[in-house]
Amino acid sequence: MKKTFLSPILLLFFSTLAIGQHQKEFIDYVNPFIGTRNMGHTFPGAAAPFGMVQLSPETNQVPMFDEEGKYIKETYAYCAGYQYGDSSIFGFSHTHMSGTGHSDLGDFLIMPTTGELDLEPGTSDDQKGYHSSFRHETEKAKPGYYEVLLDNYNIKAQLTATERVGYHKYTFSEKEEAHIILDLMANIYNHKAKNVWSFVRVENDSTVVGYRQTNGWARTRYVYFAMQFSKPIKSYGHKKYNAPRYNGFYRKFDEAHNFPEMAGSEIRAYFNFDVEPGESVEIKFALSPVSTNGAMKNLTTEVPHCNFDEVVKSTQEKWNKELAKIDVKTPKEEQMETFYTAMYHTMLSPVIYEDVDGSYRGLDQNIYTSDGFTNYTLFSLWDTYRALHPLFNIIQPERNNDMIKSMLAHQSQSVHGMLPIWSHYANENWCMVGYHSVTVLADAVAKGTTDADLDEMIKASTTTANVSYFDGIGDYVKMGYVPEDKSGASVSKTLEYAYNDWCIAQLSKAKNDKKVEDEYTKRSSYYKNVFDKNSNYMRPKLSDGTWRENFDPLDTHGQGFIEGNAWNYGLYVPHEVDQMIEMMGGKDQFSNHLDKIFTTEIEDKYIEHHEDITKDGIIGNYVHGNEPGHHIPYLYNWTNHPWKTQEHVRMIMDTMYSNDIDGLCGNDDAGQMSAWYIFSSLGFYPVLPGSPNYAIGSPLVEEAKVQLGNGKTLHITVKNQSEKNVYVKKVVLNGKEITDFQLNHLDFVDGGELLFEMGRKAKK
Amino acid sequence: MKKTFLSPILLLFFSTLAIGQHQKEFIDYVNPFIGTRNMGHTFPGAAAPFGMVQLSPETNQVPMFDEEGKYIKETYAYCAGYQYGDSSIFGFSHTHMSGTGHSDLGDFLIMPTTGELDLEPGTSDDQKGYHSSFRHETEKAKPGYYEVLLDNYNIKAQLTATERVGYHKYTFSEKEEAHIILDLMANIYNHKAKNVWSFVRVENDSTVVGYRQTNGWARTRYVYFAMQFSKPIKSYGHKKYNAPRYNGFYRKFDEAHNFPEMAGSEIRAYFNFDVEPGESVEIKFALSPVSTNGAMKNLTTEVPHCNFDEVVKSTQEKWNKELAKIDVKTPKEEQMETFYTAMYHTMLSPVIYEDVDGSYRGLDQNIYTSDGFTNYTLFSLWDTYRALHPLFNIIQPERNNDMIKSMLAHQSQSVHGMLPIWSHYANENWCMVGYHSVTVLADAVAKGTTDADLDEMIKASTTTANVSYFDGIGDYVKMGYVPEDKSGASVSKTLEYAYNDWCIAQLSKAKNDKKVEDEYTKRSSYYKNVFDKNSNYMRPKLSDGTWRENFDPLDTHGQGFIEGNAWNYGLYVPHEVDQMIEMMGGKDQFSNHLDKIFTTEIEDKYIEHHEDITKDGIIGNYVHGNEPGHHIPYLYNWTNHPWKTQEHVRMIMDTMYSNDIDGLCGNDDAGQMSAWYIFSSLGFYPVLPGSPNYAIGSPLVEEAKVQLGNGKTLHITVKNQSEKNVYVKKVVLNGKEITDFQLNHLDFVDGGELLFEMGRKAKK
Repeated sequence: MKKTFLSPILLLFFSTLAIGQHQKEFIDYVNPFIGTRNMGHTFPGAAAPFGMVQLSPETNQVPMFDEEGKYIKETYAYCAGYQYGDSSIFGFSHTHMSGTGHSDLGDFLIMPTTGELDLEPGTSDDQKGYHSSFRHETEKAKPGYYEVLLDNYNIKAQLTATERVGYHKYTFSEKEEAHIILDLMANIYNHKAKNVWSFVRVENDSTVVGYRQTNGWARTRYVYFAMQFSKPIKSYGHKKYNAPRYNGFYRKFDEAHNFPEMAGSEIRAYFNFDVEPGESVEIKFALSPVSTNGAMKNLTTEVPHCNFDEVVKSTQEKWNKELAKIDVKTPKEEQMETFYTAMYHTMLSPVIYEDVDGSYRGLDQNIYTSDGFTNYTLFSLWDTYRALHPLFNIIQPERNNDMIKSMLAHQSQSVHGMLPIWSHYANENWCMVGYHSVTVLADAVAKGTTDADLDEMIKASTTTANVSYFDGIGDYVKMGYVPEDKSGASVSKTLEYAYNDWCIAQLSKAKNDKKVEDEYTKRSSYYKNVFDKNSNYMRPKLSDGTWRENFDPLDTHGQGFIEGNAWNYGLYVPHEVDQMIEMMGGKDQFSNHLDKIFTTEIEDKYIEHHEDITKDGIIGNYVHGNEPGHHIPYLYNWTNHPWKTQEHVRMIMDTMYSNDIDGLCGNDDAGQMSAWYIFSSLGFYPVLPGSPNYAIGSPLVEEAKVQLGNGKTLHITVKNQSEKNVYVKKVVLNGKEITDFQLNHLDFVDGGELLFEMGRKAKK
Repeated sequence: MKKTFLSPILLLFFSTLAIGQHQKEFIDYVNPFIGTRNMGHTFPGAAAPFGMVQLSPETNQVPMFDEEGKYIKETYAYCAGYQYGDSSIFGFSHTHMSGTGHSDLGDFLIMPTTGELDLEPGTSDDQKGYHSSFRHETEKAKPGYYEVLLDNYNIKAQLTATERVGYHKYTFSEKEEAHIILDLMANIYNHKAKNVWSFVRVENDSTVVGYRQTNGWARTRYVYFAMQFSKPIKSYGHKKYNAPRYNGFYRKFDEAHNFPEMAGSEIRAYFNFDVEPGESVEIKFALSPVSTNGAMKNLTTEVPHCNFDEVVKSTQEKWNKELAKIDVKTPKEEQMETFYTAMYHTMLSPVIYEDVDGSYRGLDQNIYTSDGFTNYTLFSLWDTYRALHPLFNIIQPERNNDMIKSMLAHQSQSVHGMLPIWSHYANENWCMVGYHSVTVLADAVAKGTTDADLDEMIKASTTTANVSYFDGIGDYVKMGYVPEDKSGASVSKTLEYAYNDWCIAQLSKAKNDKKVEDEYTKRSSYYKNVFDKNSNYMRPKLSDGTWRENFDPLDTHGQGFIEGNAWNYGLYVPHEVDQMIEMMGGKDQFSNHLDKIFTTEIEDKYIEHHEDITKDGIIGNYVHGNEPGHHIPYLYNWTNHPWKTQEHVRMIMDTMYSNDIDGLCGNDDAGQMSAWYIFSSLGFYPVLPGSPNYAIGSPLVEEAKVQLGNGKTLHITVKNQSEKNVYVKKVVLNGKEITDFQLNHLDFVDGGELLFEMGRKAKK
């Protein structure tokens, strides 16, 4: 394997280390289509690492609700706007979420067409409308680059992006009038209903600015833009689909044609150009969370030139640099693709959420300037606290520190005084349970990667943990558990709050604040209050102290768990695994339970109606396609059968991930699913974020060089690696053998050598 | 007459000059109720001079359209929210327009109630709803202060305001639970349909912030607020009237009760307090055009204390200082009231439109900082260029200079490159015709009151005058007139453009730019192109050069004029009155025509359907209740019968103005009607803004001391003044007799003595 940025001589040298692979750049191993079939919810479009602009094709316009207001199930497939099985493209929009289990965004859809102007999108089975059919043969996707032929119009579409600017290049095949449609009504999910306001100004013959406000998953969301065409607009116009009752003295104008101001709740604009065969129309399209002036500044700063290829090159250089942070060799070429695509998917969110001058929109809709940090948004924390942020603490410590400061800023702007639950473009969308920001804070403190003020972190965390009206916290604090009759998913909440509270205790410990530490250590034991000794399960308890009747530990509905059941989600006590196992009957009984999880088939009735549990991601009763069980394969380490962790982890990597289009077994969830794969491939996993510990698994790689962000490198070598040699015979870190299946971050943070010796037989 | 701020001894001294009047402050002569009956469109509430906050009662909630979308005529009476004939108050809102002929605003309606909470306003003939009946006996209004008893609840309501903060004081009569309703759906005009978005946060137990966006006369308007209660909120909540289809994970919360975030397109909030008999709940309510943080800064800067009376005192001191700028003696006490109420009405718009730190929202919705000026909005220029801005050039030169700079900033932010037509809270509402900003610029240059850059003013003016798609300008420039078949009200437009172009020529002349001066001087003669020699009228011409058939010079509909007819509006050539008179048949024929205007009864059919021509404001065919004729009484000065100007002007002052509730004969139009009265009372009027000339009329006052803003004073003395002595026998300025009935601004700008000698007989 060869890397970019190396001199030819070095390349020659390194090539001798390569194992039968062609000379490739890191980006060549990334296939952005992975996860775009079924429920991976990834998108194939162009983006820079952690970029706010993620410019990608939309293949469907299924709304969230039908005319009667009924939820349309098919919408769920379009969280990232694209499904590989589709054959029509409706345009290219500038914002996406990668892998999330709910959606929003899809801002500023651009579609080039020719022929008679049609501002209606149409449907994929309809010849009418501005959409176009396309074929995968004409489609190319690489980090920072996407290309497709729009068959209906014979237009070659090419996309690239910087952090804040999308760059479109549309090449036409005939001498004709081309239309560039800017559909301000298009959205991902719930599309028309979302639009609150749109505002557009044609500033001159090639520059257009504006913004729009939506009310969707994010309640009050503004996105501003500035777009520049590579040639003068010949003519333009727009159509209002929901005319205001009163249009005032605008009736003086022919607003629909060549009038430089457009505004309304539902509008579609178009810009016409005369083109010659082979001629391209390019569009630079900048976003801003702040203002159109901000977007313009982003545009001129990030792409001052008009060179599409230059942007592709520069963004791909950025990707190569980021992907190089873990330089691996895998036994099989396809594993390289799976691995680097996973790496790629861990860098599509959170996203940078500020202008080039540091201005950003705060949670209270006021404009702030990030002082001493870069502001990020899109924190899908119930997912990402598990492995994504821990991964950042290894290879992206600086960004993770910025993310922590972004969370603290969010907290200071929150009227609830709360750290983010799910931070979403200057909004809190409140998705899922727990207050996992505190875990991200504690993990960074445990690993020494943050310089955020410890007092501020503790205060923000304890304030968050005491917002009595949030998701049963009031009762939890008072009664020691969330009562199911007061707040649903009460067991999930109780377990996660207890774990989060352990994290707060760790923060307080770092500060030597014994009082707060004790308070939260006490709270961290509340998981015991929802353990029912009789059934031997975590079980929903009512406010009168009795257990909820009709308890079915396999059911995922109304049984105290969210997106899980007592069988699997009930094992969530990462901070006191030993005590939990003891409580549940001891190591062997627990190990048996784990075995049963992986072998008992989940009944269909428990799967249907569950968007987040898809059959692809299920092994017995273990759901890898969703987060609550991600630590489960590693729990064997706490029993007498750690070798079962090793075989299960390898089995999961082999069966739940691949380099196919449907290579993700469930939502990638903003990179969490991919982060699991990266950790597991390296041979360890953060079962307990907030501590410096990792549980040893079974590495997939043959070798890995991990850049630790501090200039140091962890070099992982795996001896006797093979498909069948899944068992770890020996682990040695910097010459010291590890026998407890625990790896400590602080033991390798200054770099060194981690050696795995593998074997075909379990070391029982 | 006595003034405030003078020592008792001085007061004693001055009192010897007083003519039978009691010891009064200037504000004592102001009656804010004048103009609140019929179509004056003024409001009685509390405001500081030129303040953004104008806190006033709403007596009706008539929407602009009925359920079928049909315009409801009665709405028009409520441009300023209050009609003296009403008996119900629906609350007190923070923004109003004074005297305008169209409306908007009415932001953030506050209503205190007791008893069972009712969030519906109800109607005045309904017992239900949160409104209350009231009686005028309990009502008091003075500059900066308003008071009323809300009979339904026995709540005494008192209001005052600084420039950016409204201060409410509600005194309750019983021990009970009080509700303070914040109705975010209430608007003046078109009320529910206007609301685009509302956003509210309860920051702590006594502070609430938020904003709302409306789409009304202003298309994209944001207003932000911060409110502080004098005691802790006991409980609060809100109701959504137009629930979003998707409310996301907010379903976790009981959003309706004590939840500190409220958002939606249609919401009403309430705040509960336990009160004792005689206890007051006070509310400080700040506005900002920028942000909630801006509003909070405005609040704490302008009213750092909690002393209602202190704010009343301080704002009334400001009013006394402003009103003192013209210190007059009138023959009758009631004329003092008419005069100082007129003065008051000239200082309610334009309004300051920036935060205390100089931040303001620009026309492009970006945030700017006013550098070296104070930013103003609400420029109703078709009205106010005539006499209001000329008045400012005498007594408010500094503010007028700021207004010019606000207009230039508006122009630089306009996507059309246009100076304001009707500047409206970071919007252009395009109301009426002409581009009269250029006149305001030229007038200030002619009078030496602006230090704005002359080049910038010329460039802004010429750019404005060439926006081809605005109101027929393209054709006007090409063909020398606006063709009626292309753009209605074509004669009004042609006449006003020609005059505006003369103003641009004056600006160019000041710069010695002969080329531009010649170009615009040429354009200024285009009025000739719509003069029909055969009918002897200004007449609508079609694009083929023929006159429009079926011409009725008395009709005000579809005859080429807006809110006027060929008889009166057709006399609008202020820059070439002599040539116009010559063209129309010479001085005597013209004088006869003027006579006929004042004596020929306007037929009813020409009045109905015309909101802006009300019978109250009509003398024959002369419409004083609207602007296009305001110069007409002064045109006799250009004939052989200047004494007719004198008698007509006095007659108009006597019959069209009074100190009664209905003392305005038509919309005050942002102070233009009042400015006419002030000028005419002093004995002269600016027939030709853009020149330093005033036409001599017939003064109403006995004496006046006019503070010129530069520290100098013009002292006007009127000898032999009496009701019957309406004729001017002699005018002497600084010892030099004026014989041409023209007064030159530059001759008195350094102060001096202006002497009128009156007589009972005309000096023919």
